[in-house]
Amino acid sequence: MASFFLLFSLFFLDLNLASSVSHPLDPLSPSEISAVADVIKSSPLGASKSLAFHYVGLDEPDKPELLAWAAAAAATPPAPPRRAFVIARAERATHEIHVDIGTRSIVSDVVYRGAGFPTLTFTEQAAASALPLDYPPFVASVARRGLRLADVLCTTFSVGWFGAAETARRLLKVQCFLAGDTVNYYMRPLEGVTLVVDLDAMEIVEYEDRVEVPVPRAAGTDYRAKKQRPPFGPETKPGIAVQPEGKGFEIDGHMIRWANWEFHLGYDVRAGTVISLASVKDSDKGIFRRVLYRGFLSELFVPYMDPSEEWYFKTFFDAGEFGFGLFGVSLKPTTDCPANAAFIDAYVAGPDGKPIILSNAVCVFERYAGDVSWRHTEYGFPNEVITETRSDVTLVVRTVAAVGNYDYVIDWEFKTSGSIKIEVSLTGILEAKATPYTHADQIAGDEHGTLLAANTIGVYHDHFVTFHLDVDVDGPDNSFVKSKLTTVRIADGSSPRRSYWTVEKETAKTEADGRVGVAEPPAELLVVNPRKKTKMGNAVGYRLISHGGTAGSLLVDDDYPQRRASYSKKQVYVTAYNKSEKWAAGLYADESRGDDNLAAWSQRNRAIANTDIVLWYTLGFHHVPCQEDFPLMPLLSGGFELRPANFFESNPLIKTKPMQRAHLPNCSRN
Amino acid sequence: MASFFLLFSLFFLDLNLASSVSHPLDPLSPSEISAVADVIKSSPLGASKSLAFHYVGLDEPDKPELLAWAAAAAATPPAPPRRAFVIARAERATHEIHVDIGTRSIVSDVVYRGAGFPTLTFTEQAAASALPLDYPPFVASVARRGLRLADVLCTTFSVGWFGAAETARRLLKVQCFLAGDTVNYYMRPLEGVTLVVDLDAMEIVEYEDRVEVPVPRAAGTDYRAKKQRPPFGPETKPGIAVQPEGKGFEIDGHMIRWANWEFHLGYDVRAGTVISLASVKDSDKGIFRRVLYRGFLSELFVPYMDPSEEWYFKTFFDAGEFGFGLFGVSLKPTTDCPANAAFIDAYVAGPDGKPIILSNAVCVFERYAGDVSWRHTEYGFPNEVITETRSDVTLVVRTVAAVGNYDYVIDWEFKTSGSIKIEVSLTGILEAKATPYTHADQIAGDEHGTLLAANTIGVYHDHFVTFHLDVDVDGPDNSFVKSKLTTVRIADGSSPRRSYWTVEKETAKTEADGRVGVAEPPAELLVVNPRKKTKMGNAVGYRLISHGGTAGSLLVDDDYPQRRASYSKKQVYVTAYNKSEKWAAGLYADESRGDDNLAAWSQRNRAIANTDIVLWYTLGFHHVPCQEDFPLMPLLSGGFELRPANFFESNPLIKTKPMQRAHLPNCSRN
Repeated sequence: MASFFLLFSLFFLDLNLASSVSHPLDPLSPSEISAVADVIKSSPLGASKSLAFHYVGLDEPDKPELLAWAAAAAATPPAPPRRAFVIARAERATHEIHVDIGTRSIVSDVVYRGAGFPTLTFTEQAAASALPLDYPPFVASVARRGLRLADVLCTTFSVGWFGAAETARRLLKVQCFLAGDTVNYYMRPLEGVTLVVDLDAMEIVEYEDRVEVPVPRAAGTDYRAKKQRPPFGPETKPGIAVQPEGKGFEIDGHMIRWANWEFHLGYDVRAGTVISLASVKDSDKGIFRRVLYRGFLSELFVPYMDPSEEWYFKTFFDAGEFGFGLFGVSLKPTTDCPANAAFIDAYVAGPDGKPIILSNAVCVFERYAGDVSWRHTEYGFPNEVITETRSDVTLVVRTVAAVGNYDYVIDWEFKTSGSIKIEVSLTGILEAKATPYTHADQIAGDEHGTLLAANTIGVYHDHFVTFHLDVDVDGPDNSFVKSKLTTVRIADGSSPRRSYWTVEKETAKTEADGRVGVAEPPAELLVVNPRKKTKMGNAVGYRLISHGGTAGSLLVDDDYPQRRASYSKKQVYVTAYNKSEKWAAGLYADESRGDDNLAAWSQRNRAIANTDIVLWYTLGFHHVPCQEDFPLMPLLSGGFELRPANFFESNPLIKTKPMQRAHLPNCSRN
Repeated sequence: MASFFLLFSLFFLDLNLASSVSHPLDPLSPSEISAVADVIKSSPLGASKSLAFHYVGLDEPDKPELLAWAAAAAATPPAPPRRAFVIARAERATHEIHVDIGTRSIVSDVVYRGAGFPTLTFTEQAAASALPLDYPPFVASVARRGLRLADVLCTTFSVGWFGAAETARRLLKVQCFLAGDTVNYYMRPLEGVTLVVDLDAMEIVEYEDRVEVPVPRAAGTDYRAKKQRPPFGPETKPGIAVQPEGKGFEIDGHMIRWANWEFHLGYDVRAGTVISLASVKDSDKGIFRRVLYRGFLSELFVPYMDPSEEWYFKTFFDAGEFGFGLFGVSLKPTTDCPANAAFIDAYVAGPDGKPIILSNAVCVFERYAGDVSWRHTEYGFPNEVITETRSDVTLVVRTVAAVGNYDYVIDWEFKTSGSIKIEVSLTGILEAKATPYTHADQIAGDEHGTLLAANTIGVYHDHFVTFHLDVDVDGPDNSFVKSKLTTVRIADGSSPRRSYWTVEKETAKTEADGRVGVAEPPAELLVVNPRKKTKMGNAVGYRLISHGGTAGSLLVDDDYPQRRASYSKKQVYVTAYNKSEKWAAGLYADESRGDDNLAAWSQRNRAIANTDIVLWYTLGFHHVPCQEDFPLMPLLSGGFELRPANFFESNPLIKTKPMQRAHLPNCSRN
């Protein structure tokens, strides 16, 4: 965490080079961030020495206003005013502040008095991480174990909520690890020692050294290329996607245009990438048609399955507690993104309100995976074989967040067929528990994980990645339809067949109908526009398809982490649109109690037929670690697809031209 | 079908250019095919005028023999003798013939007297398709509808089995379509007319003209590029994967070597691609370790959901009835496979025993999709941010079978992480039913499909693609383990947590334990070698992961097609290895009764712990057609992964080098 602070302090400058704001959904520019911070610092709140900015983001225009602006012709009405939403803390109070950027004024400043706390700042995490190194009991614990204090570094863990009626203090837990001969300190935990820090006092308020456990050795844990010694692993030949006619996409401010897609690409410190106003061109109609009003990663719940003292609380909400967008990495050309990618910077606010640049936070590239888009070979004609084939090119928008140990690759992929595919890939480092065991045969009981290496247990855990998908099929008023595949038994001998399945369409009326789990009877799930039909009379729609990652939570409903993430037992929720309902675990995820989360909103049972609805999709992964995950795991992916279903009158790609061989570039070795 | 015959007759030559046979698993070469046919034609069977070859394939060596040969050092023992297995019909009898190619002798010729018939030949399908055009009642039916006989072409459909106790005749149904102004005749069915042909007599034995239905018009159905008129669809910029250091794979006869993989790439007229002896190199141990002994597409069950007279029997077994490998298309460079692909021909036997070349039946290419292989960004150190990233390159082996209307893309993808991913993609043309309806509002009852265009119903159907995967993890004696994720409730207050999940491993003892459905409680499914452990004591294994395509059959168990494909309600079967158990719907799929299929073998309940076992995985897709599937569908994919789980001591890719920017090639436009 400490380096995070240092890295970003390099960028604590007055960034007047702000990219021009040209779209109402553009993320706050560096100068806007500065202006917002200045406004707040100029207010009475600015007098507080403990003022810290926990969230600064665009308070986007209300949806009807934004839709009207977006729909207007070229001589547009003035853009809606730019506003920011800020969650700041000062004097142990949480302030929700709306700022009008144009008038440089605070519109409202309300103190939040409910449960939970805002996203942690990286400065307070860095400061908390440093406390143990000066704390005599900890220094003694290290010495007692015969370890070098200079090798120790600590990191912070959210404390969760375990039933306390009152939450007086805002806390963080700190645990420590050994680096020394490796940078992979996660594989060398100083097990058994836990500190609790009061963040607002920045003091250690609890200390426990419960048990001594051997620290796993450094050998075999380092993943840096320069540290590897033979025998080396597999070698592959390099390959580059060369585009002899240049890139096919256009970046115009934050608008991306490619093939038959256009969308706004934003960024938020909590969500990461935000895709807005995604529309696909209907070549028959000659117009762009809306598919997705706004989509973003809403929460990432990561509960560990070890109930012991050092592990029970590890039940993270990576977006709400830590800020998924805040941890967006600087993507490396050629390796994180291919050579034909374009890179885009993002700007977020630091805890002091000053803008920070996250360089190369997002990359955009055309993917030439060698896939087929559609094809047919026809053998039925007497005198000829007919073949038509089209290869597929897709557009990928990628971010990667490295939230502590784990790296999450988030890909939004746009296809010319009209599909949007979202894929989440897990890589990076597991959380490991130190153990006396050096062989699985020594283990009699349940260690809640797999022995990955000597003295190293990879603890069982889950990842639940929830996406907010405000799908607007041809407009905001949609319905959620379950096309239930129903078996019909033929008992009357009217056919030699004894059964078939048919489709019974059920339009969800209220939010109770909009909660769908993975074990449901088979059905196709669609978001349709019930008032727009194709020429054949089918309601235009988009279908939701799973591509792996369909785990649901197995915790009991009254377990504290499960109460906080009670939405994690269903893959799909459909809610009535409400601007404030963005963050699936609630606005205040840190130490939250689950009373203001996606499941709670859904319990209101609002009407969701033929109205503005939001689809929430949760990808779930159960992770039983294996040795291949040591010392760092190879990518594991899962995703889902929003696919046109009677959105178009016919296949939109028939009227496309096949790629010509003449396009092959003339290449020589560099 | 007729063109198939013509196309291949061009290749009915003595192909002495046979690729040399160098591996016991090599598919039969053209000269071997000729030799086998000659041997049989020289036998008494050769005197029959009705002799036809329905299946000719390699009778691979018995597994222990092959494994011994494969394991031997460079100065190998002589290869096992080359043998062929042939299913031939003559005088209405089905002969199972084993031929020793080396000695040019028939080892055995046994007449099969059970239920079902062998794979249909393309010549008999072509001949049956032509019969209606000379059949006066049909000619009259066409005239009565005011249609031009010259526009009509017919195709054949397997009849299935619907309870008849005796099957005296080998039948095929024929239905007809209109081409004329389009090549997409499937969208223009001549609904209501069905013929039944006795194949051995090559005579029409039943004729029905049940109802007249308007033929859908040709407009909008043609998919050929030259027939398209503006407005055109989306345009993309071309991109080519350029490999400045050349290809990374080596094709040595039928052995493929790439990165840390080697495997034998074979081909079978019924299965298509056959992957054998797939082994991955363990760089630590310095040896290749076996993963998959043999893997291939075993059956493809495609039942339609319309019980009417013209549709009830459409319950196809595309591998067993038609020959999935027989319909392998000639892959088009640049579009079917990228520019950096290598193409491989396949050879199969025609119905007269003569070898036929399927040129470019298989392509092999390295895929540069721009994906990450593994990465980590480490923010935890005070003075530096550490980043390591590796990009992913994979090897894809692709075939496409165009079995009538549908095109199936089968991709075997090898990853340097040790994973094998298999993906099946559906494209091509739907089966459509003609209807009087021109708008969905006119439809009162259940038409068993979606109105895709005027007068055109896309009928509901399923695809169940079953793979035979003889996974041999570090050797043939394996076990099938279910790592069941079990919720544990903490009731004693020993932790602030109230629950967690843990893993209870259950080794399947008999085949009853080896049948797993999609709705099962959550578990990881692994094939392990129980006698080989890692240094940490974990059993080496491979895990099975689904990536979409998890539908199971919804037909009632006693429905005839369901009896024939009774295995289609479970995703996974594990059986005891038995050389004869290859084809999931049985050796004789045409008009089969289900008494010799995967589910039946599994009912034997053989022991499957610590013995040679076979994993069978069925990908399932329910297809509710939508207008985007008209006149031809965009790719829809699903797949699964065999992923190392404690197979390696650690991540095999840590000791790899990142790709250098210096590799960027110097390219100019062509």
